[in-house]
Amino acid sequence: MRPLADAIRPTFSFKPQKLRDALGLDLTVVTETYQHTGSFKFRAAYNLALNVPNGEILTASSGNFGQALAYACKLLGKRAVVVMPSTSAQVKIDAVRSYGATVDLVDTAKIGRNLRVSQLAAEMPDAYVASAYDDDFVIDGNSSLGDELAALGLDVVISPVGGGGLISGISKGLCRYGSKAELFGAEPLLGNDAARSLRAGRIIPNETEPTATLADGARTISLGTRNWEIIKVGVAEIIEVSEEQIIEALRSYFRLANLKCEPTGALSLGALIERREQFAGKRVGVVVSGGNVDPAIYSRLLA
Amino acid sequence: MRPLADAIRPTFSFKPQKLRDALGLDLTVVTETYQHTGSFKFRAAYNLALNVPNGEILTASSGNFGQALAYACKLLGKRAVVVMPSTSAQVKIDAVRSYGATVDLVDTAKIGRNLRVSQLAAEMPDAYVASAYDDDFVIDGNSSLGDELAALGLDVVISPVGGGGLISGISKGLCRYGSKAELFGAEPLLGNDAARSLRAGRIIPNETEPTATLADGARTISLGTRNWEIIKVGVAEIIEVSEEQIIEALRSYFRLANLKCEPTGALSLGALIERREQFAGKRVGVVVSGGNVDPAIYSRLLA
Repeated sequence: MRPLADAIRPTFSFKPQKLRDALGLDLTVVTETYQHTGSFKFRAAYNLALNVPNGEILTASSGNFGQALAYACKLLGKRAVVVMPSTSAQVKIDAVRSYGATVDLVDTAKIGRNLRVSQLAAEMPDAYVASAYDDDFVIDGNSSLGDELAALGLDVVISPVGGGGLISGISKGLCRYGSKAELFGAEPLLGNDAARSLRAGRIIPNETEPTATLADGARTISLGTRNWEIIKVGVAEIIEVSEEQIIEALRSYFRLANLKCEPTGALSLGALIERREQFAGKRVGVVVSGGNVDPAIYSRLLA
Repeated sequence: MRPLADAIRPTFSFKPQKLRDALGLDLTVVTETYQHTGSFKFRAAYNLALNVPNGEILTASSGNFGQALAYACKLLGKRAVVVMPSTSAQVKIDAVRSYGATVDLVDTAKIGRNLRVSQLAAEMPDAYVASAYDDDFVIDGNSSLGDELAALGLDVVISPVGGGGLISGISKGLCRYGSKAELFGAEPLLGNDAARSLRAGRIIPNETEPTATLADGARTISLGTRNWEIIKVGVAEIIEVSEEQIIEALRSYFRLANLKCEPTGALSLGALIERREQFAGKRVGVVVSGGNVDPAIYSRLLA
């Protein structure tokens, strides 16, 4: 049972010259695409599986958290059951299964993921029911990335936002180390509940799951309540990113930084492209949350 | 004028779990795709531009060396002139120009690159004429990657081979640190002069430039004589890689390691896929030489 700090890979950060020149910004890319299971979610999942006493863990996930939980449970000798929308990227479904977890596919047009989790929880009384974001173990796990970001001496950090697990963890880690970096979120305009929530000063959910955005890791109904408590004080602004800017960011990473990332991972650069003037003269770090994307989708976006 | 060790980025190495599981091998990926200008060539070019007294440097390059030399000369306040085949990837031509170098495009069906370099050299009497591989400064620059590889504790290192600049540099660096790692080359079957040379014990050139291979960084006529002197004693074998295996390797990096690389960079993994049994039970490092590839070509290979 390795502690979290030994189990994770340190993030990989670099300063791609061509991308910096193209944007005219002092940019650092902080990428979790080489983290175990290809996204930051391993930090959360491992910390959770390590710390709960239960031998079974049940969760709903559009893919990356499920994959991370499956691998964490494999490492820790626990059982994982992952409820996934039947529309999830095939590469993500296959990956969850490859780590030995049980996948429960649901047609989210017929039954909500959370309802399905409740049904399964009733059948598995000894299981820990894990939220992919609204959970203190998840936030604490993700705060390890905030620790690493604090060491980079940045003025600004931009992070993708879905349920808020990553950005609340980053906020916690940055605070712990007394970092003065301003923290911004980057959210798909097509699922902008977090941006509207921060403007209103209270959680405002999307009316339905925002399935139209390419950023499948940010197709969440709402911020989690634990995440919101941190976000409302620790995040300066949530920037809304159009689908066009998500694609532009993904292509820019490919052409100007040799980085493969998934659409959700490109959100933070998309936000930066959208607001370039605002960040001029500052040392800006963009967090790439993950890299798992179907080759067919990626090829289409690149072409 | 920063010394080489300060000017380069350390290579990025990681152990992608899915790729390791798929191959059943103890694999470390050592990638130069995040090196300055996106390939190992910056090591060579910077070392050369730093150490020659000339203010002008003239070279022929299918792209990555030209790009690296252009950037190195920009950093060091020198002038670079790069002769490139008119069939070079557009992304590489643009990149060379973006660093302020002069590009001289030649139709290699009509005039050889080396002949064109001779013509230009006559017009530029003060210029240093740099080979992209057959040059001691180039080999010494690339040996810095061998130094880094020596520190990784590998049993086997596999490196792409074109003119031999990279693999001879790696050999030199590995030897300097007393590494016991066996060194293998990976060369396109469609341009297998190095494999034939090593078998014959003397340099055997290709009859024409092997333009049919996807691995555009390995479309060389022959090994360089300085490279050959090192390769003939330091390299165990040159493995010939089919075009199918190059594509398979490039796709595997995408799907199982979140790594974007160019076809030439995928050669070493292609060789490993071809010879999996031979390397079972060994700690194998595959060197990814670079990441610069046109989006259209990459999309087509991925699909």
